Amino acid sequence: MGPHPAVAAIRVAVRRVLHDVLNHHTSHSPAPASPAQQPVAAGPARPAGAPLPSAPADGPPLVLVACSGGADSMALASALAFEAPRLGVRAGGITVDHGLQDGSDVRAAEVVLRMRSLGLDPVDAVAVEVGREGGPEAAARDARYAALDAAAERHGAAAVLLGHTRDDQAETVLLGLARGSGTRSLSGMAAKTGRGGRYRRPFLEVDRQTARKACLIQSLPVWEDPHNSDPLYTRSRLRHEGLPALEKALGKGVVEALARTAQLSRDDADALDSWAADAERTVLDERGTLDATALYALPAAVRRRVLRRAAIAAGAPAGSLFARHIEEVDRLITGWRGQGTVNLPGRVGVRRQGGRLVIRQG
Amino acid sequence: MGPHPAVAAIRVAVRRVLHDVLNHHTSHSPAPASPAQQPVAAGPARPAGAPLPSAPADGPPLVLVACSGGADSMALASALAFEAPRLGVRAGGITVDHGLQDGSDVRAAEVVLRMRSLGLDPVDAVAVEVGREGGPEAAARDARYAALDAAAERHGAAAVLLGHTRDDQAETVLLGLARGSGTRSLSGMAAKTGRGGRYRRPFLEVDRQTARKACLIQSLPVWEDPHNSDPLYTRSRLRHEGLPALEKALGKGVVEALARTAQLSRDDADALDSWAADAERTVLDERGTLDATALYALPAAVRRRVLRRAAIAAGAPAGSLFARHIEEVDRLITGWRGQGTVNLPGRVGVRRQGGRLVIRQG
Repeated sequence: MGPHPAVAAIRVAVRRVLHDVLNHHTSHSPAPASPAQQPVAAGPARPAGAPLPSAPADGPPLVLVACSGGADSMALASALAFEAPRLGVRAGGITVDHGLQDGSDVRAAEVVLRMRSLGLDPVDAVAVEVGREGGPEAAARDARYAALDAAAERHGAAAVLLGHTRDDQAETVLLGLARGSGTRSLSGMAAKTGRGGRYRRPFLEVDRQTARKACLIQSLPVWEDPHNSDPLYTRSRLRHEGLPALEKALGKGVVEALARTAQLSRDDADALDSWAADAERTVLDERGTLDATALYALPAAVRRRVLRRAAIAAGAPAGSLFARHIEEVDRLITGWRGQGTVNLPGRVGVRRQGGRLVIRQG
Repeated sequence: MGPHPAVAAIRVAVRRVLHDVLNHHTSHSPAPASPAQQPVAAGPARPAGAPLPSAPADGPPLVLVACSGGADSMALASALAFEAPRLGVRAGGITVDHGLQDGSDVRAAEVVLRMRSLGLDPVDAVAVEVGREGGPEAAARDARYAALDAAAERHGAAAVLLGHTRDDQAETVLLGLARGSGTRSLSGMAAKTGRGGRYRRPFLEVDRQTARKACLIQSLPVWEDPHNSDPLYTRSRLRHEGLPALEKALGKGVVEALARTAQLSRDDADALDSWAADAERTVLDERGTLDATALYALPAAVRRRVLRRAAIAAGAPAGSLFARHIEEVDRLITGWRGQGTVNLPGRVGVRRQGGRLVIRQG
């Protein structure tokens, strides 16, 4: 008899990612079987501390899991601990102590013990100092990724697994929707991101309920982050009020639809970005000015992306450059009636002169 | 002193559309001033039945408003009645009696009187029979547009104005999001649509509150459609529960962000569709088969659109062709391991043969 479906689901998700990590690992280890040839069910878990399968002299790759002790990342840690040794991968874990609640250090130590008891090694707790920049959520995230980056470097990890689920993805799409800045902002979190694709999110198609169930079935203790239900946090309000109300109005399946939207939007945004990069070369001259007639002939979606690229290249900070800025620049092309210079963030000015757009900082 | 800001806002929105209608009207009437040169404030309304400004022999264009008697379309009717004569445009109105409630015929007759009292002429009430296909909302919509099309033909109207507001647009984007079928489904309602761009939506950037306010200020009686607050209707649930909960979680500005998403998504979808049309020509041979290697080289977003176009050209009904169908066809390109024929709706089969995709109905 195979494992419970929830446990099987989290293991398959992790196995797929480990196969991909192995395929991209520059070792001389023999190539693993492709996911399609690999059976889904698997035997009992390897006892903690059992030796790793033999590996070539340059060593098996190390994969770390970022684990808060919550259900999603505990499920991820358990699946990694189960699958890694079967594929000749070393598995370790990191927990980040954000220092935002009393006793967070004690809890981090507890999470370390839980990861060790799953058989992960090396296991680290890393304390960080959370700043204030960009609000509490963004500041905690920045501190966390800096610590994970450092841990990955220190251990020479080939990948760091993150426990974001399909529900997290749906919430991220809604947060992007609220910005109203288009297809890229609807594309949610990438399955593979960071330097060299270091960060992986094996659970983007696994729902939160499955991760919880897998913890329950495997008798894994989990810790509920109070931030997750703190109405001060936008994401928490979305999770506990916004999304349930949307599901009530639109029917179950909203989370799945949002996650699918993320993937489709990501592909669309990638394609349009590549088109804009190509188009930029055809409208740009050696002095860095842009041909207005050639810009006019482009589809609006591509033209706006070319204008955005050019503004950023001239020194406008990407994060301060909003749709309304680009629309105003676009009117120099589509609604030309002798306007003056359009001023963008970062002291970048755009003016139309002799049938060309001149974009300059200063 | 100019009109109240809400009244000014609805008039400007209608005036912009009337200018565009005049620019596209194939009469010999003198070209109107551009919107940029046109002042916003305006005098008192022309009394009902006053003669139209002189027009060339082939007659001024007729613009109809589709009016339910609700606040949005009554505001639209009032703005049309005010602006049209100033631009040498004839203005009429149509109300559709869906026959779904007792006394709907009496109400339609009342709406006709209200439109006449605004000075609109011709004014018609059209009774339709609502079928059942596609659910109550879709069936009512189909019957309504058939009646509006027929009325536009009968009167030789240059355009039919629809009262959808920015709030309706936001709701439409959320309904598209719930389908999870990508950028096109997020693009909401077009400002200009139907045969020859007959239908116009001047209020897509006007919020519902402004339309209501404009009715109040102008002492226009309005009728509340009970369907708008009937929780049996998805859109009504979204309006009264889903969107308010999202606003509570994400902050005010969600409606605006959703409407902006619609416009950006529409432009993105248009650009990608045009790319796919071009790409199709490069991968298609004279026997109608597609080159697998050339398809593989395309960005995923473009390749999927090419595959969708080819499936529809081969006879698959667009409405039954879902993302999962196209993904399965796509795996013949990106995950080729000797799969058999992929079966699509409409008895269309896709198989890979000698490095080409063969798409056939039968």
